[in-house]
Amino acid sequence: MKQSLHSATLSNGIILVGERLPDLESVAVAFHSPAGSIHDPVGTCGLATVAGEMCLRGAGVRDSRQLVEDLESAGVQWSQGVSSTHASFSGAMVARHLPDVLPIYADILRRPLLPEDELPAARQMVLQNLAGIEDDPAHRAIAALRRIHCPAPWGMPTEGISADVESISIDDVRGFVGHHLQPGGMIVSVAGRIDWDDFVRRVDDLLGDWPAVSSAAVGVGPRGPFIHHVPHDSQQTHIALAWSVPPYRDDASHEATAALAILGGGPSSRFFTEIRERRGLCYSVSAGYQTSRDFANAVCYSGTSAERAQETLDVMLAEIGRLPGTISPDELGRVKARAKSGLTMQQESSAARAGAIARQWYHLGRLRTLAQELERYDRLDVAGVEGWLADQPPRDLTVVSLGRDPLEVRCAIPA
Amino acid sequence: MKQSLHSATLSNGIILVGERLPDLESVAVAFHSPAGSIHDPVGTCGLATVAGEMCLRGAGVRDSRQLVEDLESAGVQWSQGVSSTHASFSGAMVARHLPDVLPIYADILRRPLLPEDELPAARQMVLQNLAGIEDDPAHRAIAALRRIHCPAPWGMPTEGISADVESISIDDVRGFVGHHLQPGGMIVSVAGRIDWDDFVRRVDDLLGDWPAVSSAAVGVGPRGPFIHHVPHDSQQTHIALAWSVPPYRDDASHEATAALAILGGGPSSRFFTEIRERRGLCYSVSAGYQTSRDFANAVCYSGTSAERAQETLDVMLAEIGRLPGTISPDELGRVKARAKSGLTMQQESSAARAGAIARQWYHLGRLRTLAQELERYDRLDVAGVEGWLADQPPRDLTVVSLGRDPLEVRCAIPA
Repeated sequence: MKQSLHSATLSNGIILVGERLPDLESVAVAFHSPAGSIHDPVGTCGLATVAGEMCLRGAGVRDSRQLVEDLESAGVQWSQGVSSTHASFSGAMVARHLPDVLPIYADILRRPLLPEDELPAARQMVLQNLAGIEDDPAHRAIAALRRIHCPAPWGMPTEGISADVESISIDDVRGFVGHHLQPGGMIVSVAGRIDWDDFVRRVDDLLGDWPAVSSAAVGVGPRGPFIHHVPHDSQQTHIALAWSVPPYRDDASHEATAALAILGGGPSSRFFTEIRERRGLCYSVSAGYQTSRDFANAVCYSGTSAERAQETLDVMLAEIGRLPGTISPDELGRVKARAKSGLTMQQESSAARAGAIARQWYHLGRLRTLAQELERYDRLDVAGVEGWLADQPPRDLTVVSLGRDPLEVRCAIPA
Repeated sequence: MKQSLHSATLSNGIILVGERLPDLESVAVAFHSPAGSIHDPVGTCGLATVAGEMCLRGAGVRDSRQLVEDLESAGVQWSQGVSSTHASFSGAMVARHLPDVLPIYADILRRPLLPEDELPAARQMVLQNLAGIEDDPAHRAIAALRRIHCPAPWGMPTEGISADVESISIDDVRGFVGHHLQPGGMIVSVAGRIDWDDFVRRVDDLLGDWPAVSSAAVGVGPRGPFIHHVPHDSQQTHIALAWSVPPYRDDASHEATAALAILGGGPSSRFFTEIRERRGLCYSVSAGYQTSRDFANAVCYSGTSAERAQETLDVMLAEIGRLPGTISPDELGRVKARAKSGLTMQQESSAARAGAIARQWYHLGRLRTLAQELERYDRLDVAGVEGWLADQPPRDLTVVSLGRDPLEVRCAIPA
């Protein structure tokens, strides 16, 4: 299959990446602006999230309601989200609607109204989400893990902290949007039935004369303790573990993600087989890979009953400790087969491809073809994964439990 | 776009439906067997779910582990699930693997080992899931709604009841599988890069000589009360509402789903605009359509804080009561645009299409082309939706609250 990947840089620094998938009827577009929660000033944790929410409450000539209605009238499946690094505005639609929809996104980015009278409702919505999270102990356990494992501001909760959110003013929002919703570091990705040259021309017309401002670097604080218990009165206990692994842009991330997939990446993984299938200790158990540009973490999770929590943690730690030196060609073969199958099927979704090429550019500063990605998997072998594990065995684990009783970390793994 | 839809019936009654999507590299296949939880005998609620779980623990010549490993080695993204009506086994894969994968599914259906020594772990996993649901109040509110709104066995929880699951024996499982995992009523759906004639031949070879047995009809019991409060000590309150609407196979379901989409089907819906955006009462609020073959329900949900719960319920009921006589062409236009866009984009996913054609056959006994589906939306107009609402306005609502305090149902809607 011939693949048509494109990239371009506007004069103000905005990066455009695209993939033409001519067999599709749809197109997916996403605007990733570097207005993520790592820029939340101390004491206003949640500001990026409130700002992202406010950007949709009217922009250009459209008020809050008109904006949403115009996107929906064009049949756009749209979404808005804020991560630690980016505020993202995206939409998937039947391809012919793209020319009418791009100016709406340009208004959201450049001319959000940020009306003061909408702030109480926007803030209230963020607070309601936070209240809902109180009822979601799995989410709370992972958030607590992140908060102590990652140095501030990386570990702070993107969704905010209630007391901080309550204090956010319209000046905070306008200041944040003015500083961070800007061309420098912005990535616009598009995939599907597109005419690339026409797309670049349209985005350049809409965003090309938007002046870049320089942004301040983010200072990094200390990390938290390695072991932490969150008291929670429930029959269930939630366990979350993390340790550091190479970020995506590091070549060794390929070996790291394969090792984590063998550990807990699916129904034939060791966690699943040993903890869920054989011992019936829990319903959900997993290990995964979470990467930022400059660092990455292995993150493991299990939700289980209070009585089985200690055994579950013991077995998770034992399986992590047992990983180096025991990778079999069969289990690596399954991981490779699943990953390659996933890559091939990803080519069938404009939204998945728009997301993938934006991530690649952010992490690597370039795009990889499907052929290159598949070839990387062909090269991946047991010796490589074992070599990486010997070099960087899991260590310095952060362990969080959320439940009735603290757990004992009986650990063969160096801490 | 020319669409190639196919159907066939094997001599033992198994229905095959398929769609060729030659631009895709993938194929998705699903086996829907009529072994759903409505067949759980009284006192063994959860048996269908335990049986579905046991079917994957070895089949034919493969033990539990080998079965999963062989699916994963072929890069199959597989899943197994039990609903009130069906046990479904499905997988998406790169098309060339289909011939090797079909015999594995045939073994799961016809020759599950159902080993006694795996039962404790399988049962334990189902129990762990139930314990996890205790920590998920939104799920509990919807389950409580279903249980009182739908007559038994339709309202019983597919995921089971702990005391019942603990008592399930291997004889229960083997009896259930023998009675219900059978050709009569089975639908096999496939979509993607397929050769239809070859697919029919292969499935006929694998399943065609499987003798059909007759299955007993399901008796229907009484429904529960209309208003119910579940005490739950939390800052959050969860509200769930239901009333009866026409099932999918009824032509009027088209008007009903449009009316529900206007009420609470997305970010420009009335619930979203009035309750979430304008009043900031909650983070999540929705109205949706849930259909069985012979009946269907409108189901509304909101999760909010205890203090705002009464106002949230009041506004939800007011919006439901206000629906007849107030549909605007603009809001119907947006619903149509989104639905048509969704239909077009669905053509790009083999898994979505395999699911859609199986559902169509189950509900209608035939397949609709994309052109027919789009044309139905073109015909949909305000007069039709208002006509249906005038005929069948929302009434006899079932109202469930889960939280600290019971709510008052101050209702302009006839009960």
